[in-house]
Amino acid sequence: MNNFIDYKNTVAEYINQINFSTEPKELYEPIAYIANLGGKRLRPILTLFSADIFGAAPKDAIHAAIAIEMFHNFSLIHDDIMDDAPLRRGKETVHEKWDLNTGILSGDAMLILAYQYFENYPPPIFKDLAKLFSKTALQVCEGQQLDINFETRNNVSISEYITMIEYKTAVLVGAALEMGAIVANSSDSNKRAIYNFGRDLGIAFQLQDDYLDAFGDTATFGKQIGGDILENKKTYLYLKALENGTDEQKEQLLKWFTDKEGSQEKIAAVKDLFEKTQATTDTQQLIETYTQKALLQLETLEILEHFKKELKGFALALMSRKV
Amino acid sequence: MNNFIDYKNTVAEYINQINFSTEPKELYEPIAYIANLGGKRLRPILTLFSADIFGAAPKDAIHAAIAIEMFHNFSLIHDDIMDDAPLRRGKETVHEKWDLNTGILSGDAMLILAYQYFENYPPPIFKDLAKLFSKTALQVCEGQQLDINFETRNNVSISEYITMIEYKTAVLVGAALEMGAIVANSSDSNKRAIYNFGRDLGIAFQLQDDYLDAFGDTATFGKQIGGDILENKKTYLYLKALENGTDEQKEQLLKWFTDKEGSQEKIAAVKDLFEKTQATTDTQQLIETYTQKALLQLETLEILEHFKKELKGFALALMSRKV
Repeated sequence: MNNFIDYKNTVAEYINQINFSTEPKELYEPIAYIANLGGKRLRPILTLFSADIFGAAPKDAIHAAIAIEMFHNFSLIHDDIMDDAPLRRGKETVHEKWDLNTGILSGDAMLILAYQYFENYPPPIFKDLAKLFSKTALQVCEGQQLDINFETRNNVSISEYITMIEYKTAVLVGAALEMGAIVANSSDSNKRAIYNFGRDLGIAFQLQDDYLDAFGDTATFGKQIGGDILENKKTYLYLKALENGTDEQKEQLLKWFTDKEGSQEKIAAVKDLFEKTQATTDTQQLIETYTQKALLQLETLEILEHFKKELKGFALALMSRKV
Repeated sequence: MNNFIDYKNTVAEYINQINFSTEPKELYEPIAYIANLGGKRLRPILTLFSADIFGAAPKDAIHAAIAIEMFHNFSLIHDDIMDDAPLRRGKETVHEKWDLNTGILSGDAMLILAYQYFENYPPPIFKDLAKLFSKTALQVCEGQQLDINFETRNNVSISEYITMIEYKTAVLVGAALEMGAIVANSSDSNKRAIYNFGRDLGIAFQLQDDYLDAFGDTATFGKQIGGDILENKKTYLYLKALENGTDEQKEQLLKWFTDKEGSQEKIAAVKDLFEKTQATTDTQQLIETYTQKALLQLETLEILEHFKKELKGFALALMSRKV
């Protein structure tokens, strides 16, 4: 995992040296702002890691990695508008710091900028990258739309929920990894396997996120515990509790989820229902299932053995995280 | 010009047969709605025309033409949000018919869909098209930002105004034409000349639009005469009147432009100032200058003589329009 620090530094250094001071500044300042807010940079790191695995120099994949990061930031700007979110990574969101129009327009520009980073590659690689990117970006939009729909729907099925997190979160992890393989000119079967590995791991990651939001350790998780419960979010825990629960438990849960105020009492009661209905253990099990599904993909990969070990280590580290 | 009807039919038929019924419908219905609102389809028509001129079958350029039209529609959806516009082509705008979030997200998806249409071309053409597209799309965003800035700025210079309309409107006309040349594998010098022709004509077109908004014939123009004046828009007419006018005329104009209510009296008074300060004749002259500048580009084009005549005819028809 030592390389991850190198990759992260490569990404950070590249972003630091981007000259965002283009005119009109009202358009580019918000772009510089969100690009420099930091964050885990997980996706671009994975692109560099993947290039390394498939035999390219990680720095050859930097443009694809930055495209992925730009896209991720574009989606944060627009999602924050749609979710009416005041804060992002502890700082004001773009539409809060500036205004709605700035959020829309600088987001649009950032999506276009993402495509431009692929121009650093020759035509066949450019086309493969841009094609994967467009397909993925469209799925992310679809995932966001499903997420919005779920807010007002009362009959969300578990398979619909999995599709939503697959599109909204997981496909971008798969694409970030596949892009490294594309830059390295790897085989189609390697490309497919690393994409699937990333996608399945992305689903496990998001389920873990849902789990930690309710059952994480306040000290290490960094966010307020129970945020999803307070917002009546239809997470996997919630949907599974409704499926598993007795009529009485179901009724209690539905009642708590009509409560718009929120309280510590509500968080405690809902978590208790998640436990009693086995939604908690079922969630942990599904996280394990998707992690194992991801690890199975490693077997078909034609790469050096030590890279397989690193990928496995990365997957397990991600899944045992407490934050 | 007979071909233009064929081109328009080709575009309309293609758009008609697109299957927009993809899920989630909340995302794709607004896309189908705006794509089918109609309009002049000027940009995609130009792409087909240009392919024809440079020796390709117009239908080979249909995917590039549709990409341009999709992009244009994306920008209409997002611009209508930013301008708080209730109507587009006489129908409700997307954010009015649905809501803000739908407008943002379906616009985003439409921008991505535009890129996907280029995937129908082989890698070198794909790259040339996508590169020109990204450059142009970014300029359109910059033009929109400049336009927003101008609303609250009191020191907009005439050259800044020309840059704004160049970016917001004219570069897309240039790009629509150049894409036909790219699909036809034409020479770099042809590509440059047809782009410049379109861009200069686009500037003339927008200046003409400003002029007709104040001095067009209500019966033929279709829009309310004086709309820009009522909205205190800093058009070329306005900026030129401020530049040319006496201190007294300038003062009168500035005073009228603090009026937020608007009235027929205001429209008449402002139009009178535009006339008396020679802003009207200066605008007509500048339209003529940009039209001539566009026509000059035709001389460097290496194409069949009858196509040059058609391009010239098109330019002159566009500039003598009353609507």
